[in-house]
Amino acid sequence: EKLIKEFGVEKISISLLNKIKELANKKGLELPLLLRRGFYYAHRDLNFIIDDYLKGKNVFLYTGRGPSGKMHIGHLPSFLLIKFFQDLFDCNVYIMFSDDEKFLEKNLSLKEINEKAEEQILQISALGFNPNKTFIFKNTEFIPKIYKDILKVAKLVNFQSTMKIFGFNNHSNIGIIFYPAIQIVPTFFEKGRVLIPAAIDQDPYFRLQRDIASKLSKEKAASIYSKFFPPLQGPKGKMSSSKSETAIFLDDDEKTIELKIKKYAFSGGRPTLEEHRKYGGIPEIDVSFQYLKLLFEPDDNKLKEIEENYKKGILTTAQLKRYAIEKITEYLKEFQNKVEKAKTEKLKEKIMYDGKLAKQMWEREEDFI
Amino acid sequence: EKLIKEFGVEKISISLLNKIKELANKKGLELPLLLRRGFYYAHRDLNFIIDDYLKGKNVFLYTGRGPSGKMHIGHLPSFLLIKFFQDLFDCNVYIMFSDDEKFLEKNLSLKEINEKAEEQILQISALGFNPNKTFIFKNTEFIPKIYKDILKVAKLVNFQSTMKIFGFNNHSNIGIIFYPAIQIVPTFFEKGRVLIPAAIDQDPYFRLQRDIASKLSKEKAASIYSKFFPPLQGPKGKMSSSKSETAIFLDDDEKTIELKIKKYAFSGGRPTLEEHRKYGGIPEIDVSFQYLKLLFEPDDNKLKEIEENYKKGILTTAQLKRYAIEKITEYLKEFQNKVEKAKTEKLKEKIMYDGKLAKQMWEREEDFI
Repeated sequence: EKLIKEFGVEKISISLLNKIKELANKKGLELPLLLRRGFYYAHRDLNFIIDDYLKGKNVFLYTGRGPSGKMHIGHLPSFLLIKFFQDLFDCNVYIMFSDDEKFLEKNLSLKEINEKAEEQILQISALGFNPNKTFIFKNTEFIPKIYKDILKVAKLVNFQSTMKIFGFNNHSNIGIIFYPAIQIVPTFFEKGRVLIPAAIDQDPYFRLQRDIASKLSKEKAASIYSKFFPPLQGPKGKMSSSKSETAIFLDDDEKTIELKIKKYAFSGGRPTLEEHRKYGGIPEIDVSFQYLKLLFEPDDNKLKEIEENYKKGILTTAQLKRYAIEKITEYLKEFQNKVEKAKTEKLKEKIMYDGKLAKQMWEREEDFI
Repeated sequence: EKLIKEFGVEKISISLLNKIKELANKKGLELPLLLRRGFYYAHRDLNFIIDDYLKGKNVFLYTGRGPSGKMHIGHLPSFLLIKFFQDLFDCNVYIMFSDDEKFLEKNLSLKEINEKAEEQILQISALGFNPNKTFIFKNTEFIPKIYKDILKVAKLVNFQSTMKIFGFNNHSNIGIIFYPAIQIVPTFFEKGRVLIPAAIDQDPYFRLQRDIASKLSKEKAASIYSKFFPPLQGPKGKMSSSKSETAIFLDDDEKTIELKIKKYAFSGGRPTLEEHRKYGGIPEIDVSFQYLKLLFEPDDNKLKEIEENYKKGILTTAQLKRYAIEKITEYLKEFQNKVEKAKTEKLKEKIMYDGKLAKQMWEREEDFI
């Protein structure tokens, strides 16, 4: 709520949510739990995106990934949400792999980053995107197609504005100072409005995009903002790839998941069983419960039952954790199977080079801006 | 002299000059007037370049051109000098066309800049470079081959150092802040030492290169520095493409050259013919004389004769100007014919794409750094 006020973005209203739900149902889709359970809760111009779509105007989707650490479950929401909107609008999705940014930011070689990128693009390709309407690209590879557009954006951004927005200072390297120009270009890949899912703290980036869009007489990006995905340690802080005790990775196996949940997942239960039975647990701060709510328990009734039983102290932390381990393991096993299938089906290659949209992007000769 | 001291560079000594002359004579070449008449007068590590060459080590040459305004005679020295060193060392030459930089700096479109670039690359290709050992590239086109190397350089340069060296400030756009990283990459195109001709005020750029080379355990660039090429208005100031009254353009015709020299070329003569005969002219500040000295009168005896007669007042300003007009016209007509010939022979295409070196550069897959 504080951030909504601070950034001047809008809360996703019940009526907007109902409008999306109605549209989804018409298409035989359900409103994804990320929306119906309020993880994505704020936006800029999401209503315009819906209106544009209903009027038959073109819309498209964009998100990015910096391939430094491994992908964890906290990375899933934005991709899952984009997948939902692709199904809803039957529109194109662009996913930028900012390997250049990560090289400039981290103590990693381009080779190391590339290995991560390739692995993670495969993982993302397994999430069910339409391979003819999805394009994933690595900046170091796609640069020839976007460099002129990057220059057009860069010309409109001065160092001062990046200091404020990105926290750059005199000691920032000149590559990372340049990077915001690169990140903005895909918002102009198509005519029409783009929708970008992000965590709420990324809103300043989008204000920069909107400012540049005005200057270029282009559409301003619409965005949909989430809360922060909780790390294992509890509802505060961030799930971090570089601290494996905070995160469940997408390639973690059953044993690792079990160990991490048992050992690290912050519990909303009481110190003793007696107290727990008496006062009940607190699902709002219980990480296992939150994971079920955000990703792993799609059944609303089942989730409600768990929540109530936990609150009443009927369900213990050990039981809740056991259930979470089961559901997370089931989900990630299925996901990992899909990754293997994606590999066999060369989905990565399709989304990067051979699919309809990818081909179109690689063959394109004109500038986007 | 002041700048030599300020920058801590070395003056080209008589013995170094003799060493180059000896080497040149062995190869049937003359020491170019730009060297023997002291226009190039200072350096960093030029002696090492000569030593490397004599020891059979690889050396190469690099310079750049920002294609915003038209090319004028003040642009010739660096290309002519590089041509001499290519003949001397029989080595590769790289010429960067920083179309990106000019787009970021000037109020010009990429299309306008590209037209200028194409015209100017043709002009340069007419200067007699070995088309199999010369590569001219436009940054917006060659970017896919150098982007990773640019990132490697950019990672080592912070905003603060560019503020000092390039005069950037908080209002500089983030593209132009990034550009120094691009400019440095060609100094690592080959193993071995690179020699770069430049005006003395560009030394700070090279100190940045030398700093980065150390960090990357690469060769530091050697440089050879010139004085400033005088504009028509006199020995102070700069010949500027955007002020046509200061410059003689490479495509100026006879009439234009005549008009510019007659109307604008600063004279070292006296106010009246009487005084001129009595006190004589001052060749040091006479622009027509300086142009003859720097580019258009290769005959040392003839130049000496002109100088002495002018000093003695035997030669009037009108006569000197007439002679300069004649020599400049002759030179530029011959040059313009060479440009036409270069067009017919597709020399530009050879130097950009089809020549041995160009092909090699475009086919290269590995990073340079």
